[in-house]
Amino acid sequence: MMKVGVIMGSKSDLPVMQEAIDILKGFDIQVEVDIVSAHRTPEKMFDYGKNAHKNGIAVIIAGAGGAAHLPGMIASLSPLPVIGVPVKSSNSIDGWDSVLSILQMPGGVPVATVALNGSKNAGILAAQIIATSDSCVLDKVIAYKEGLKVKVIESAKGL
Amino acid sequence: MMKVGVIMGSKSDLPVMQEAIDILKGFDIQVEVDIVSAHRTPEKMFDYGKNAHKNGIAVIIAGAGGAAHLPGMIASLSPLPVIGVPVKSSNSIDGWDSVLSILQMPGGVPVATVALNGSKNAGILAAQIIATSDSCVLDKVIAYKEGLKVKVIESAKGL
Amino acid sequence: MMKVGVIMGSKSDLPVMQEAIDILKGFDIQVEVDIVSAHRTPEKMFDYGKNAHKNGIAVIIAGAGGAAHLPGMIASLSPLPVIGVPVKSSNSIDGWDSVLSILQMPGGVPVATVALNGSKNAGILAAQIIATSDSCVLDKVIAYKEGLKVKVIESAKGL
Amino acid sequence: MMKVGVIMGSKSDLPVMQEAIDILKGFDIQVEVDIVSAHRTPEKMFDYGKNAHKNGIAVIIAGAGGAAHLPGMIASLSPLPVIGVPVKSSNSIDGWDSVLSILQMPGGVPVATVALNGSKNAGILAAQIIATSDSCVLDKVIAYKEGLKVKVIESAKGL
Amino acid sequence: MMKVGVIMGSKSDLPVMQEAIDILKGFDIQVEVDIVSAHRTPEKMFDYGKNAHKNGIAVIIAGAGGAAHLPGMIASLSPLPVIGVPVKSSNSIDGWDSVLSILQMPGGVPVATVALNGSKNAGILAAQIIATSDSCVLDKVIAYKEGLKVKVIESAKGL
Amino acid sequence: MMKVGVIMGSKSDLPVMQEAIDILKGFDIQVEVDIVSAHRTPEKMFDYGKNAHKNGIAVIIAGAGGAAHLPGMIASLSPLPVIGVPVKSSNSIDGWDSVLSILQMPGGVPVATVALNGSKNAGILAAQIIATSDSCVLDKVIAYKEGLKVKVIESAKGL
Amino acid sequence: MMKVGVIMGSKSDLPVMQEAIDILKGFDIQVEVDIVSAHRTPEKMFDYGKNAHKNGIAVIIAGAGGAAHLPGMIASLSPLPVIGVPVKSSNSIDGWDSVLSILQMPGGVPVATVALNGSKNAGILAAQIIATSDSCVLDKVIAYKEGLKVKVIESAKGL
Amino acid sequence: MMKVGVIMGSKSDLPVMQEAIDILKGFDIQVEVDIVSAHRTPEKMFDYGKNAHKNGIAVIIAGAGGAAHLPGMIASLSPLPVIGVPVKSSNSIDGWDSVLSILQMPGGVPVATVALNGSKNAGILAAQIIATSDSCVLDKVIAYKEGLKVKVIESAKGL
Repeated sequence: MMKVGVIMGSKSDLPVMQEAIDILKGFDIQVEVDIVSAHRTPEKMFDYGKNAHKNGIAVIIAGAGGAAHLPGMIASLSPLPVIGVPVKSSNSIDGWDSVLSILQMPGGVPVATVALNGSKNAGILAAQIIATSDSCVLDKVIAYKEGLKVKVIESAKGL
Repeated sequence: MMKVGVIMGSKSDLPVMQEAIDILKGFDIQVEVDIVSAHRTPEKMFDYGKNAHKNGIAVIIAGAGGAAHLPGMIASLSPLPVIGVPVKSSNSIDGWDSVLSILQMPGGVPVATVALNGSKNAGILAAQIIATSDSCVLDKVIAYKEGLKVKVIESAKGL
Repeated sequence: MMKVGVIMGSKSDLPVMQEAIDILKGFDIQVEVDIVSAHRTPEKMFDYGKNAHKNGIAVIIAGAGGAAHLPGMIASLSPLPVIGVPVKSSNSIDGWDSVLSILQMPGGVPVATVALNGSKNAGILAAQIIATSDSCVLDKVIAYKEGLKVKVIESAKGL
Repeated sequence: MMKVGVIMGSKSDLPVMQEAIDILKGFDIQVEVDIVSAHRTPEKMFDYGKNAHKNGIAVIIAGAGGAAHLPGMIASLSPLPVIGVPVKSSNSIDGWDSVLSILQMPGGVPVATVALNGSKNAGILAAQIIATSDSCVLDKVIAYKEGLKVKVIESAKGL
Repeated sequence: MMKVGVIMGSKSDLPVMQEAIDILKGFDIQVEVDIVSAHRTPEKMFDYGKNAHKNGIAVIIAGAGGAAHLPGMIASLSPLPVIGVPVKSSNSIDGWDSVLSILQMPGGVPVATVALNGSKNAGILAAQIIATSDSCVLDKVIAYKEGLKVKVIESAKGL
Repeated sequence: MMKVGVIMGSKSDLPVMQEAIDILKGFDIQVEVDIVSAHRTPEKMFDYGKNAHKNGIAVIIAGAGGAAHLPGMIASLSPLPVIGVPVKSSNSIDGWDSVLSILQMPGGVPVATVALNGSKNAGILAAQIIATSDSCVLDKVIAYKEGLKVKVIESAKGL
Repeated sequence: MMKVGVIMGSKSDLPVMQEAIDILKGFDIQVEVDIVSAHRTPEKMFDYGKNAHKNGIAVIIAGAGGAAHLPGMIASLSPLPVIGVPVKSSNSIDGWDSVLSILQMPGGVPVATVALNGSKNAGILAAQIIATSDSCVLDKVIAYKEGLKVKVIESAKGL
Repeated sequence: MMKVGVIMGSKSDLPVMQEAIDILKGFDIQVEVDIVSAHRTPEKMFDYGKNAHKNGIAVIIAGAGGAAHLPGMIASLSPLPVIGVPVKSSNSIDGWDSVLSILQMPGGVPVATVALNGSKNAGILAAQIIATSDSCVLDKVIAYKEGLKVKVIESAKGL
């Protein structure tokens, strides 16, 4: 079965990135987690980007903050779809640097960017990508969305 | 074979969105194009979002400008992966409204956002998603990236 | 008598939206409150928008945060005046996303936007709209404004 | 019948504000147009704000650019609903000053703000406000929205 | 002797504005303090602006937050130099609305704007204006600046 | 009689700064114009700042763009009131750098900042400062403002 | 003698980057120019970054636009000082993305960032770095700055 | 051996600037620390800028917040490479003023700008500049970067 690779630039990003891991596990999708820093471990990043698609990974989720180059560099190195999570790290200017340095990729090298700290959505998006060829995961995505609906309806009853 | 649905909020978005269409056709991926306005044709949008995955569409690319609600609403209605293209339309404040109203989706409903006017990358990303289960498309993606490399190397020779 | 519908995308928006409810009750205007999420309950939103004007509602106040699509989508679905309250929710980038995705509506589909978290003003504006055909409410609006004046004059005495 | 007052801070705002005038005339709603500058004719502004509701005006549309004080000051002086149009004037910093100085009104004094240069929507919103007590105008608003829909559907045929 | 009028839109601005009052008192310049709200007490504002120069006031310092119209409206009504203090009030978007709605005045009606919450500098600037015709105050300004220098030199010794 | 010193960081700022010169000449106020670059002629700037008040100058208007240090440095060196004009120069990021590096002065060293490219208002403000001790200039300021009013009233007649 | 490496992400950056090349040649400093794209030629970038200091290069100037990863990645790979030039490329949001993705590097991996399109300053800075151990270049830098001064003094004469 | 001068506009900047001092000491590079305020001690700043290169200083690191003129003015006065650290001081608007007034220097006078509060990187950059002519420092820089790598690899083991 397809695996999702979840990587982040620093262990301090883990509290944000954990939401992606949790939601994927909730969908029974296999996850591989690693710390890969574009700026401190460029060689590891190169290896990761070059080989992910040969190691059974189907989708990569990459989170980073500040001048966040990890998602874009992985997208440069890998043919796989790369989902970028802008992290509002302690060195970020209110998140704008994280968002813009992930989102504004040049033509030819896309990164599928989600909201600032939107790691949960990165996980759901990875599941939706896998679901394009796995109807079992598609059913889980549909059920998940149904669950969101029920929670809102319930919350409205308490008004 | 999987199809990609390309929709946009207004015909005036077509010059930007054409790049997605062209690149997908270059990958020999079937594309269905339509105008679907969240604000002017909400019923059509509802039908589109509810039924796309039943009509053989695997990935949706949605482009819109200003208070751009189309990508997020389609993501709300469909279980498919939705790629959002923020368009710098004439009524946009330098593109910031288009970017933020597509990118900043709440937890539970992701939109895979690309750069402002980054329609070409939306097309490539859709191809990469299809390539997760179609090795023929994967080969084309790899060849495309190789082509980018060659062009840069060539351009450096002329210095 | 005319009613005001107050809806919000999430129960977490209630502390902000309560100010609209309170001020309307202070004007003896009937209020109907509901949770309607554009992204999690699109069908409920559709029903709400399509039917509000048939259910005795004269003005709709809709509050939401982040990529806030609820006010604009309701404006798309209903012929009623829709007042949008940008909420500075936990997932918002300092409120800019909420403001821009409510304010920057395309030509044809207005949303009457108030300040970030400006729910009290949404309530007053709804009362002013009702007052265009209800001189009793107009008198209350005039008295309310007179009251604001008195409070400032009083506060200056304590200097 | 209810009239709409359309005012603007400078004659140079007229090309933008004309869209409000035209759409209201299209709805057969009576419009009174004037130049009222908060900063250059404060006395005229005072008279206008104090007396509009006594002169048969039901809704005021006020457009201004830069440090745009006209809409908020009129809202301070009049009990009527005031719609503010931020104009991207030549002295504006990309429209941000116009938007923020109209939108961010303090609690107690709302301005119903529309998009940057969104004068057409100001006109539609004024019509919707009048329609809360005039079913004939309501019918026209509904027909107008139906017309928007038809145009989009038509434009999609030409793809 | 020339007096400085210090006004603010709300008593909640007093902690910020107190710095202007204190520094002026330190220069032995007479200060008159009042609460004058552009939006809640427009008539009081009109009287204040129209009459300040007849009441022995030479310079006006006006502080306000959010859509801060007080400084610009006073500048519209009075021939005196008006110093505007953008206050980062609780309803402000990080101060940007306060800054832009005070700074970006149209040609013809200047407001001498100081930094966000820069009330102390407003007081010094008022003293400098008075000092243009009062050599005694000029000497105090020169001494004040000398004092700033000494404090920095001292602070460097402790390194 | 009091003179106004008008300086700018580069001759390319002259088209913007000319408006200050013209309006001051219209008030019959003597103007001395010079090019003083904080970054290219720091010694000249030092001399200018240190000596202006000894050379009969009462108010300094300083215009600069980008990282605009001239107004703040002159304010550091001179006891006179300094009016800063943020210029939208060719190397500026939409004027934000010019505005913030002039406006956001630390406590102790004010710069009276006017709008982006607001050179005309700098001239009027200088006249208002001189008018605090020169009733003849005060009369001219009052007449000027009256003239603004008349022009608006006239422009409204042509509607 | 020490060489400066000037690289850029795309040949379309050459008009901006030429200013760095020209000023360095004016200082008689040897320059090597190349096109190195972080996203399209990651392997070439890796080689460049890993080997520059072995090839006689002392300082690297790297220019890029949009999500500009080249300067930061080179800084990650090389022990040399790296000067980053944010380029306002056609796909940039007013330059903010270029600036933030170059400037906001994490602790440990600096990029010496210059102004948007500030390629000339990158060249001067590289010369200043070389001048720390080459008194001949230092003399040229001092003479260059003297030349700037003379030009301003001359320009002031023509007023 | 070459010394690095570390200066800052206020003692309150020391907690941020200490990181530069510490990292330089870790590289066994001599550091001279001083408080030099552009706005409160302009004469001291002049002396510092004019004489640093005569006093054995090879690189200057200057930190300041708000309208941060110190780095640019020192760059104007000294032929040495100047590294600017934008400090997010208490009077700064989220750091934007500090960043822009340091980064956006005009052509001819570069400041090597690092990230907001990026004082550690300023120290590393100074070391890299010294390392261009000191192979012993170069070895330490290479070892430092190797150390960063090891820490990331280690942190990944704990996942």
